[in-house]
Amino acid sequence: MTAPFSSLEEFAELVAQAPAADAGAAAAAQDRNGQLTKPPGALGRLEELAIWYAGWRGTPRPALAAPQVLVFAANHGVTAQGVSAFPAEVTGQMVQNFQRGGAAINQLARAFGARMDVHALELDRPTADFTTAPAMDAAGVVAALSAGWAAVDADADVLICGEMGIGNTTSAAALALALFGGTAQDWVGRGTGVDDAGLANKARVVTAGVALHGGAGALDALRCLGGRELAAMAGAIARARALRIPVILDGFICTAAAACLERTRAGALDHCVAGHVSAEPGHARLLRALDMAPLLSLDMRLGEGSGAAVALGVLKAAVACHSGMATFAEAGVSDG
Amino acid sequence: MTAPFSSLEEFAELVAQAPAADAGAAAAAQDRNGQLTKPPGALGRLEELAIWYAGWRGTPRPALAAPQVLVFAANHGVTAQGVSAFPAEVTGQMVQNFQRGGAAINQLARAFGARMDVHALELDRPTADFTTAPAMDAAGVVAALSAGWAAVDADADVLICGEMGIGNTTSAAALALALFGGTAQDWVGRGTGVDDAGLANKARVVTAGVALHGGAGALDALRCLGGRELAAMAGAIARARALRIPVILDGFICTAAAACLERTRAGALDHCVAGHVSAEPGHARLLRALDMAPLLSLDMRLGEGSGAAVALGVLKAAVACHSGMATFAEAGVSDG
Repeated sequence: MTAPFSSLEEFAELVAQAPAADAGAAAAAQDRNGQLTKPPGALGRLEELAIWYAGWRGTPRPALAAPQVLVFAANHGVTAQGVSAFPAEVTGQMVQNFQRGGAAINQLARAFGARMDVHALELDRPTADFTTAPAMDAAGVVAALSAGWAAVDADADVLICGEMGIGNTTSAAALALALFGGTAQDWVGRGTGVDDAGLANKARVVTAGVALHGGAGALDALRCLGGRELAAMAGAIARARALRIPVILDGFICTAAAACLERTRAGALDHCVAGHVSAEPGHARLLRALDMAPLLSLDMRLGEGSGAAVALGVLKAAVACHSGMATFAEAGVSDG
Repeated sequence: MTAPFSSLEEFAELVAQAPAADAGAAAAAQDRNGQLTKPPGALGRLEELAIWYAGWRGTPRPALAAPQVLVFAANHGVTAQGVSAFPAEVTGQMVQNFQRGGAAINQLARAFGARMDVHALELDRPTADFTTAPAMDAAGVVAALSAGWAAVDADADVLICGEMGIGNTTSAAALALALFGGTAQDWVGRGTGVDDAGLANKARVVTAGVALHGGAGALDALRCLGGRELAAMAGAIARARALRIPVILDGFICTAAAACLERTRAGALDHCVAGHVSAEPGHARLLRALDMAPLLSLDMRLGEGSGAAVALGVLKAAVACHSGMATFAEAGVSDG
């Protein structure tokens, strides 16, 4: 489908008009939860997850049968500043690995029964080095948002967005600094494995980028400091909201992209749950800034949607219990 | 099969003779892990989990295709002391619910492709009230250990033990106090939902039980303060070790049963991973005492093996990545 926006302003308007969850379905799910054969609250976070999911799916006893994993890949001009331990050509090599089924996310999508689609976004044309120019122009960011918007399967019942892009933890740190303040040191981490000097260099690069481009709105920050894969994730998450498809957020880069929506319109991520907290230290800070509690904390820092895909197992467990369990009345069990 | 022991002493001997993991397979798995198409360490705990699993399965690239969930149910004479918010007949009602497929653990076993077997252990003959007599005599505890031992499928590649038994958080708290010391207040919690007075009563009951039976060895504590489902879990976990089947521990009650093995022979739980930390407060303390880090923290406190079953998703994810991913050489990806 063609995305129904042709400018950042029109995209912001769509984000502002995002639909709410079905309060009636959520209330009915809450009621059902109270009747299931278990002590009240004994399934902990699984219970709130299932009720949240039911609200977004618009039914008190939802299925979870059609998860979609989207992986967006792009190249970053800021790699010219030496911010990554891996060379930029790894982005394209990993896209081939995704297409051949050899990456972590392929195994996880298969293990949890998810459809997976990979979108390589103009890998031969890196975005501009944001220390010297905006990463993208207006047409470029709209194209990337549109690619994400169009990639969502309208029949999916849960969405995971992942990314691959050498240099993109630097981009995410710059976005986080522009959106939430603090210092560059608060947001940079070792990414795929830079050393202490590399970490200091990342902080320098992030500081320079935000000094050059900061102060504009969240979507303009996405244009100037982000990358195509970050914009595509933001577009996909916004489309999922329009379709009332719940989203499991992945790590630092995915969450930074999502944060641009939340800073455009408070509540824009109400259909999202934080799948995990990454070992990239800026991620925990970013989740706190967004008031999101991660489902998992497994020291993962791979990207690709991998942390969210592991959390898909938790969401599947929650929905399976909620929709499959017998009630006290059905089972003839005394309810205390 | 008939269990190869007929006394607690013979069972202790088997626990002491437990086989080790295959160090060669673990080393080969570690080597393989370093070649997979991801930055070193980027899959966090999934990497160590997969290597641990490979060591116990005795192969560097293991499958995880035949999980088994065992649920043991039993009744506790200590319910006469008013320690539970639910009446004792709920144990039998829940066994019927398990058999009909209506409980949480049924949904979780199905969601993650696990075989599930339910064993009701003489429900019409509760163990003795441990504030006045040993819960079981020698023949009784050996019978329960044997039931657990015999219930393990030798072809399973991972085992989860769960339980149902009104009153059994009290039994677990008494065991934990007997094994690790402290005060009853350190180990008691609200279980399925007792109020403040109920909590104080549980502490009184636990104190009385340990005063009467404490000071003997760990397996004698299991006999005097445990229950048939706890002894059966201990028997099953010991059998899994003999078969080199990795085990995912569930919550407070399962971990208390397992702790009796660890206190019989240090290292007896090396084939076990803590699936989650329960909302029952004694569980976190017990895991610290055992130096085990839980995979999940989702405020669950249901038992039945439910927390371990959710963690099965994490283990499946770990093994899928480890055994399914391409190496740098296979994928033609630059390794930094």
